[in-house]
Amino acid sequence: MRNFKLLIQYDGARYRGWQRLGGGADTVQGRLEAVLSRLTGEETEVVGSSRTDAGVHARGQTANFKTEKDLEPEEILRYCADYLPRDIGVTQVSAVPEQFHARYHAKGKVYLYQIWNEDWPNPFLRRYSAHVRRRLDLGRMRAAAACLVGEHDFTAFSNAKMGKKSPVRRVDAITLEEEGGLVRIRLAGGGFLHNMARKIVGTLIAAGLGELEPEAVANILSAKDRGRVPPTAEACGLTLERVVY
Amino acid sequence: MRNFKLLIQYDGARYRGWQRLGGGADTVQGRLEAVLSRLTGEETEVVGSSRTDAGVHARGQTANFKTEKDLEPEEILRYCADYLPRDIGVTQVSAVPEQFHARYHAKGKVYLYQIWNEDWPNPFLRRYSAHVRRRLDLGRMRAAAACLVGEHDFTAFSNAKMGKKSPVRRVDAITLEEEGGLVRIRLAGGGFLHNMARKIVGTLIAAGLGELEPEAVANILSAKDRGRVPPTAEACGLTLERVVY
Repeated sequence: MRNFKLLIQYDGARYRGWQRLGGGADTVQGRLEAVLSRLTGEETEVVGSSRTDAGVHARGQTANFKTEKDLEPEEILRYCADYLPRDIGVTQVSAVPEQFHARYHAKGKVYLYQIWNEDWPNPFLRRYSAHVRRRLDLGRMRAAAACLVGEHDFTAFSNAKMGKKSPVRRVDAITLEEEGGLVRIRLAGGGFLHNMARKIVGTLIAAGLGELEPEAVANILSAKDRGRVPPTAEACGLTLERVVY
Repeated sequence: MRNFKLLIQYDGARYRGWQRLGGGADTVQGRLEAVLSRLTGEETEVVGSSRTDAGVHARGQTANFKTEKDLEPEEILRYCADYLPRDIGVTQVSAVPEQFHARYHAKGKVYLYQIWNEDWPNPFLRRYSAHVRRRLDLGRMRAAAACLVGEHDFTAFSNAKMGKKSPVRRVDAITLEEEGGLVRIRLAGGGFLHNMARKIVGTLIAAGLGELEPEAVANILSAKDRGRVPPTAEACGLTLERVVY
């Protein structure tokens, strides 16, 4: 049995997210499995590191799949380039030990959230950023972000239908930079609950617009109060940048 | 009578180019005129510096329009941000002397052509670059480009239906750079004939792939031989970067 690790980019706009769903829903995992099953002649399952939501992009999603077939990484890369749709790109393929698991072995993830912060819409960033027309105060956003760094119970920043998963997560860093009207927020951590990255960004935006006091974020977090969390930031601004092993 | 200069960006993918056409064709000029006519209450004509083709993008298109209405630049900018489609952005508005003409007074233009040169498709650049899977030799492309710099009769790099316009144009510089699989070609000159920038790029690509000897480009140019010019590079890779006054 061989095991291959894939590095994957995708424009998430037209997909119902990463995870394969029933009923013919178009997902990135589904597309990859269809192409790789054709290549291997087996029913190939692709294990992704992160179940990105509908509309969320990736520049460094990782995944792995196993096959009995004698394949070279170069062959897989070429086949994917030939047969995947143009909005999904497999950028690297490597042979890995059989026990490697893209999700279980991931030690951390880095997400990028882009906000276009000019009054006029940016034609080239409109698919990859949220458009906030009122000026954001980055100082206030950084103060709000500081409340969230560390290991916390992130129940407030999770979905109600979270199930029995532990709501404790470690956020290593939230950094903000602005250049030429574009605000880039990088979130690095051990892992993120479903919608957590976008709920954090929505909160930072509210703080940056003066709609929420930065200090209130610590209270929302400790009170595990989902009801006081500002609207979740839109999916198209979010990109999974990198998975750390 | 007031005269306003506009700085404009657009994603050209869904437009039939800059220039207004009859029959309800969707063009950038047509969209701008519709919005500005509504603002001014007059039948406003917008004069653009460059008639970019269908599918060609712009980051620094310039235009001007005249109006009897007492308007502030700020007001025009805001109205455009509110009512233009999201793939057209007016980024700057300034009051200019009544005699300013965006096309006649343009002294030079800079175009950028992007080529994605990896085997796998790039999901984020697919709308803004041509995809060339075989490796390009930039040394050969630079040698070919060198033949075209200067003031020349560019008949070979023009369309047959050019009419009575002079085919003499001045190309100031063609520079190539490569970074992380992306080849960027910048073409600067006094002005370009219809399709000239894309015909030049098509020729550089052929030279870079070894299909054309770089030295042959000088002969094609001096022979004014349209028939020997390689296929025109596709529109989506081209962006009007800047207009110089």
